[in-house]
Amino acid sequence: MEKRIAIQGIKGSYHHQAAKMFFKENISLVECTNFKEIPESLENNSADFGVIAIENSIAGSLLQNYKLLGTKGQNIIGEIYIPIEHSLLVSNGTRIEDLVEVHSHPMAILQCEQFFEKHPHIKLVESTDTANSAKHVSEKNLSKVGAIASEIAGDIYSLTPLAKNIQTIKNNYTRFFVLGNDERVSHADQGINKASLKMSVGHQTGSLSKVLSIFSIHGMNLTKIQSVPIMDKPWQYAFYVDLVFPTYETFKAVMGILKHEAEEVTVLGVYKEWKLENMVYHSEKSKFE
Amino acid sequence: MEKRIAIQGIKGSYHHQAAKMFFKENISLVECTNFKEIPESLENNSADFGVIAIENSIAGSLLQNYKLLGTKGQNIIGEIYIPIEHSLLVSNGTRIEDLVEVHSHPMAILQCEQFFEKHPHIKLVESTDTANSAKHVSEKNLSKVGAIASEIAGDIYSLTPLAKNIQTIKNNYTRFFVLGNDERVSHADQGINKASLKMSVGHQTGSLSKVLSIFSIHGMNLTKIQSVPIMDKPWQYAFYVDLVFPTYETFKAVMGILKHEAEEVTVLGVYKEWKLENMVYHSEKSKFE
Repeated sequence: MEKRIAIQGIKGSYHHQAAKMFFKENISLVECTNFKEIPESLENNSADFGVIAIENSIAGSLLQNYKLLGTKGQNIIGEIYIPIEHSLLVSNGTRIEDLVEVHSHPMAILQCEQFFEKHPHIKLVESTDTANSAKHVSEKNLSKVGAIASEIAGDIYSLTPLAKNIQTIKNNYTRFFVLGNDERVSHADQGINKASLKMSVGHQTGSLSKVLSIFSIHGMNLTKIQSVPIMDKPWQYAFYVDLVFPTYETFKAVMGILKHEAEEVTVLGVYKEWKLENMVYHSEKSKFE
Repeated sequence: MEKRIAIQGIKGSYHHQAAKMFFKENISLVECTNFKEIPESLENNSADFGVIAIENSIAGSLLQNYKLLGTKGQNIIGEIYIPIEHSLLVSNGTRIEDLVEVHSHPMAILQCEQFFEKHPHIKLVESTDTANSAKHVSEKNLSKVGAIASEIAGDIYSLTPLAKNIQTIKNNYTRFFVLGNDERVSHADQGINKASLKMSVGHQTGSLSKVLSIFSIHGMNLTKIQSVPIMDKPWQYAFYVDLVFPTYETFKAVMGILKHEAEEVTVLGVYKEWKLENMVYHSEKSKFE
């Protein structure tokens, strides 16, 4: 049976791309109109897994998505990084001088500003979604309107890429978490070597550095740390932390120690680290239905 | 002479509010259409200071704004926290049942979703700016369109607040940095006790915890830490760090030590810590022109 994957957005979105790359097999999409629906569709069993953007190399962490983690009892069971490579997509036959408007998500517009400075006759119009903009151009068969979206959205909605890789900063990627029911994953699985935690430490000076020392003594490498204020406790902070650990046994042992050293620790998930060398660029892909 | 303050947005925006609260005197606004123009207007001397949103308690850090810090030679010379209290603003005489549309920035719409669930006849329309939406309703004298914006925007554009504090999460605040030419500030100024740094450490396990130990040994309290990937060095990270220090001499001494322990350290600014108890809510304000 096909796995049902909840994503934010529609077919051809970067979330779709992340889901395809992660599961590497036939999947059926559960399209959500906002991020909150992703954990909800896992909870009400309309999806088996969820894929949710968590940080972008340019824009930073999506803190509001971090807050959704663990809310419906599901855990992080994987991570994947997707390069954000925007194309200018148009109907067949449209030339760049024909374009009056280009539609896309505000973030995508911002990322491609420099490209459009050379084409000042084009009005940039904000929409809710990159893939939706492509779908709109395609369905209405528009000849004077283009879309900024992934080349894959172009494939799916039969649009022509007038220009590829039009984002200003070429090295732009988004990290996604894969959410699922933790019980389906065996922690002893070969290759599970990374954990995401939420923790809070005492507000006395040095309490964080003590906890980080415990990690380093046990050979655990911190790959991300981010402090977030705790709403009802002014001047106290929680930390989102990602750790790569040598063995699952070490991880469990350190979690035992942490109980005494941190005020609160929540394991958001353990999973296999995604290696940057696994990142697949569109030009290298064989096909994407 | 009035200080010229560059802000993102227009009169009545939360940036305007932050500028007013920080400078506490008559200021003239330099309205910027995007964040990048704030450091630019300091560089070309069309503004004396800039005010720039840097993080929100719900959405997290604005990493793209962090990247603008120090780009044009200016430094952080202050910080301020502003509560985000959205009102539903309408023309005089408009009742909630008359409204067909409400306009605002996508983030403000998201923050007030729950309020509008009770009023499903109202269509929520995304705009570029909260204050601009209020200005639009006022200038066009619209009777069926409202705006989500600060109560202050209502005062400025002579609109009536139909409902106040309509954001779902009441404890919502945004932190702003005040940018200026560092030379105008004396570091020995009474009360300067906080610094914002960007630093990168070696990628060996434990190098961050060593640096944090140095801070704690010298009585410096970490109030924020955020890792960001370094673009061209996969799996290496830079850290944005905020520290409260006991004396400016301690701070200088620790910066001397850090030269040997961290790979790179940039001081983005030293300034006086903003205390949460200084936060002014609209209801407590005497007047705001």
